[in-house]
Amino acid sequence: MPKSNSLRRGVAIKPNKIYMDYSASATPNPSSIHMLGLEAKIKLQNARKEVADVLGVHPEEVIFTSGGTESNNLAIQGVVLAWHKKNLEKILPHIITTNIEHPSVLETCKLLTERKFAEVSIVPVEKNGIVDPKKIKKEIKDNTVLVSVMYANNEIGTIQPIKEIAKEIRHFNKINSIGRITGEAKKILFHTDAVQAVNYLDLNVERLGVDLLSLSGTKIEGAGRIGVLYKRKSVELAPVFGGGDQENGLRPGTENLSEILKFASALKLVNSAREKETKRLTILRDYFIKKLEALGQEIIINGDLKNRLPNNVNITIPKIPSELLVIELSNKGIMASAKSACKSGEAGGSYVIKAICRKPGGEVGGVRFSMGRQTTKKEIDYTVKSLSEILKKLKKWS
Amino acid sequence: MPKSNSLRRGVAIKPNKIYMDYSASATPNPSSIHMLGLEAKIKLQNARKEVADVLGVHPEEVIFTSGGTESNNLAIQGVVLAWHKKNLEKILPHIITTNIEHPSVLETCKLLTERKFAEVSIVPVEKNGIVDPKKIKKEIKDNTVLVSVMYANNEIGTIQPIKEIAKEIRHFNKINSIGRITGEAKKILFHTDAVQAVNYLDLNVERLGVDLLSLSGTKIEGAGRIGVLYKRKSVELAPVFGGGDQENGLRPGTENLSEILKFASALKLVNSAREKETKRLTILRDYFIKKLEALGQEIIINGDLKNRLPNNVNITIPKIPSELLVIELSNKGIMASAKSACKSGEAGGSYVIKAICRKPGGEVGGVRFSMGRQTTKKEIDYTVKSLSEILKKLKKWS
Repeated sequence: MPKSNSLRRGVAIKPNKIYMDYSASATPNPSSIHMLGLEAKIKLQNARKEVADVLGVHPEEVIFTSGGTESNNLAIQGVVLAWHKKNLEKILPHIITTNIEHPSVLETCKLLTERKFAEVSIVPVEKNGIVDPKKIKKEIKDNTVLVSVMYANNEIGTIQPIKEIAKEIRHFNKINSIGRITGEAKKILFHTDAVQAVNYLDLNVERLGVDLLSLSGTKIEGAGRIGVLYKRKSVELAPVFGGGDQENGLRPGTENLSEILKFASALKLVNSAREKETKRLTILRDYFIKKLEALGQEIIINGDLKNRLPNNVNITIPKIPSELLVIELSNKGIMASAKSACKSGEAGGSYVIKAICRKPGGEVGGVRFSMGRQTTKKEIDYTVKSLSEILKKLKKWS
Repeated sequence: MPKSNSLRRGVAIKPNKIYMDYSASATPNPSSIHMLGLEAKIKLQNARKEVADVLGVHPEEVIFTSGGTESNNLAIQGVVLAWHKKNLEKILPHIITTNIEHPSVLETCKLLTERKFAEVSIVPVEKNGIVDPKKIKKEIKDNTVLVSVMYANNEIGTIQPIKEIAKEIRHFNKINSIGRITGEAKKILFHTDAVQAVNYLDLNVERLGVDLLSLSGTKIEGAGRIGVLYKRKSVELAPVFGGGDQENGLRPGTENLSEILKFASALKLVNSAREKETKRLTILRDYFIKKLEALGQEIIINGDLKNRLPNNVNITIPKIPSELLVIELSNKGIMASAKSACKSGEAGGSYVIKAICRKPGGEVGGVRFSMGRQTTKKEIDYTVKSLSEILKKLKKWS
């Protein structure tokens, strides 16, 4: 065999191999049946197993997607489309969700409503940013097929009572399943968007009691830019995309192997660091909040103080636009966020802050500080000091 | 300001900056309004401009997706969904395509048909694997909204007469647009899947005459794992996913910046190397075919010999299963493909080879050799020699 270039510009191909499969993909592809394809397939299987282990599920219950938005869409649209496929009587399936979900859940529900594919009930959260499981239960109807409640909120970091909601749904499924008009799909399914929870909260789906769970690599340090949807084996899902038979036919398209491998390693890492990091950041977060309160300014801390992510502090300062604060902070080298970055182009402030606003018509902007593995106490001291200076400056000019 | 770690494990964050936006994403995100967010936004704009320049379009006509499958789905489902949004009389939109499209086109058409969202006419290609533009024209009906024909086929490499089809559609649009039942959407749109064409064929959409064009990073050496959909400004498209307002609201989800940057550079590179590589590989391809014919075995070269990608050779050897050949070749260090890797799990052989099969009921498998930037004449000599040995061995045992 002639020696091929051992270094193929940017292409992970072995020396002494002749690659005649550039049209499959410029790098070996797990769907190919030749040797390098098989090697890629084994790597993919191992990564799927690693992700499955963290969730406590079977590898075949892990679907790789392009990100959190796609995972949420596949969960919600997938349940609705599968239901339409079976249900010939044209009964609209019913979804229950909350008013502070991520846009990839709320806007998907809106699309399905507009397209007359589903009807949706939106349960408002309480003033602390947490939904009451009893209020979810109250919305259940004969045609309810899915409940979708996020694990932790992306703006204010509040943690939803997933286990309690699961219990309500399980109870309902036990008692009321027979004779429901949803036909064969008698069971109400429970989906949670765990994108923001991934670094700090328990991801074991059995303990949580969910049937579908979304993750995104974007929110994990060092992870590949992909998403994951856990789908309990018994859940019937229809694909959103048409295409090849990858991911059990539920998510066509060549697998993004290099990013999947990075995702699996990073998830394993955050899983083993979870307890320690949660402790460390909870102390930092509470220190941060205490220092903010000590500033002697009117600062509202948005969202429940206890049931919240250890890395999240979200504040509203009455009369000061959150965007202005973020830009002033940025000038001092501090990168914070006004509202959810995923919906930052939208006018009219944050619907999440609005949902928990104590005074109607009041300030609806929020500044979110979200910490990570490298955040230090020193950084928090500097942030609070800078914020104090900014507030003094803005006061002078107002 | 305290010095932050200049090296944040795997995170592209600048020294002397305090990153308090981990919940947006572990790396800076173009949707964030702080300094690092703005820097990311500028990089994204530059990459969009680079891609637009290669296609000869405006940057706002470039939509970044997760890959070729998503681009094809967004084009086809997007046109159909936008049409349903406007069309209250519930007339089914009609799509025309061919029988050798990629599964992400054919299966999407099938999904839309099953879901009673569209009706589809599938035009068979000729025995040389090329579609007759007149046969496309013949299928146009009052409710036709979209024609989707691939630029080059992924299995047999045949190049479709995109410019001629565009001419037929333009002609029809000029003469027959008034009074068509498609209401406001009087114009028939033309989409091409250019995923396999990207390295070797002209991508200027004006010269091609298309309204929508799909690309994938998977097929470009060194490119990021994303996709692109070109959408002419005037085309009305509805999003498939619900979510944030990224990509003009047509493709929600945090932008995959690092992969987008890699895609744009790699596309620029293949664009500048296009002419030279096409010449080089055309000579290699024709040399490859000549050597195969000289073997004195019954070897069928699938697809037109002239109007085909310069990097593609696809053969059928009667009575020898293509999978067996690929495994034998793999044992000799040669990575080729049996059928399309995107649909390799399917039973029953290749629908593309079937579509151009001369004898009904005959062998429907094909072995694809697809060359790339590193392929040499020496590698082809070794491949043909190996194939000859394999055929001798298999003959002995049959």
